[in-house]
Amino acid sequence: MEPAETILETVRREFREETGLEIIAPRLRGIFTVVVYDEGMPQEEWMHFFFLAHQAAGEQLAETHEGRLEWHPLDRLAHLPMAEGDRLVLQQMLRHDALMVGRFHYTTDYRLLGYDLTETEHVQYTS
Amino acid sequence: MEPAETILETVRREFREETGLEIIAPRLRGIFTVVVYDEGMPQEEWMHFFFLAHQAAGEQLAETHEGRLEWHPLDRLAHLPMAEGDRLVLQQMLRHDALMVGRFHYTTDYRLLGYDLTETEHVQYTS
Repeated sequence: MEPAETILETVRREFREETGLEIIAPRLRGIFTVVVYDEGMPQEEWMHFFFLAHQAAGEQLAETHEGRLEWHPLDRLAHLPMAEGDRLVLQQMLRHDALMVGRFHYTTDYRLLGYDLTETEHVQYTS
Repeated sequence: MEPAETILETVRREFREETGLEIIAPRLRGIFTVVVYDEGMPQEEWMHFFFLAHQAAGEQLAETHEGRLEWHPLDRLAHLPMAEGDRLVLQQMLRHDALMVGRFHYTTDYRLLGYDLTETEHVQYTS
């Protein structure tokens, strides 16, 4: 997050910077505490917010500093390279429209050591 | 938040420490960026999470390090001493069961300089 940003401003800015698109009606679906361990000792910790959106506007960039952009069918989620915790959260987000809260423990090379995840409530679109 | 805590563990721990009670089914209702300004320059910034709950268990303490504990009827919310931003959020929480996201700007003596607040979506209890 940039100074003084709200989490909604952050997700809009990050999405724009990394895709060229304006995300429409992003919905908060996860708030996670991520702890990275080096030889069993906590080294780093951050909060991870997940949003779900069904629409975006504008012209999509082909490539950004994050790499080449591609759309993928949802059934490839099980096989695409990503942190295992992110895969678990994305798969759960597709099953239930709920707000999840939890924690992920990783090694410094992002091997998942353990996690816990709670669905706190179901959510409905406004409007 | 304590190291490695999830936001749900934090709200349960803080509620217990400051009331003696175990909060039941706390629901996230607000995520706010709070910025404190000294002579127009940002000095401090933090995130503020608001939860709503309708029940708690256990025996309530009479007093904690935060002061003497008291129950108040909801219509006194307009008059109780508190930061103005907190009052605005609590009043809004009573009107709508929605998740709010926003920002509050304060002086170092907690005078409210300005704010913005968005209702992002309606929420439903998961049984």
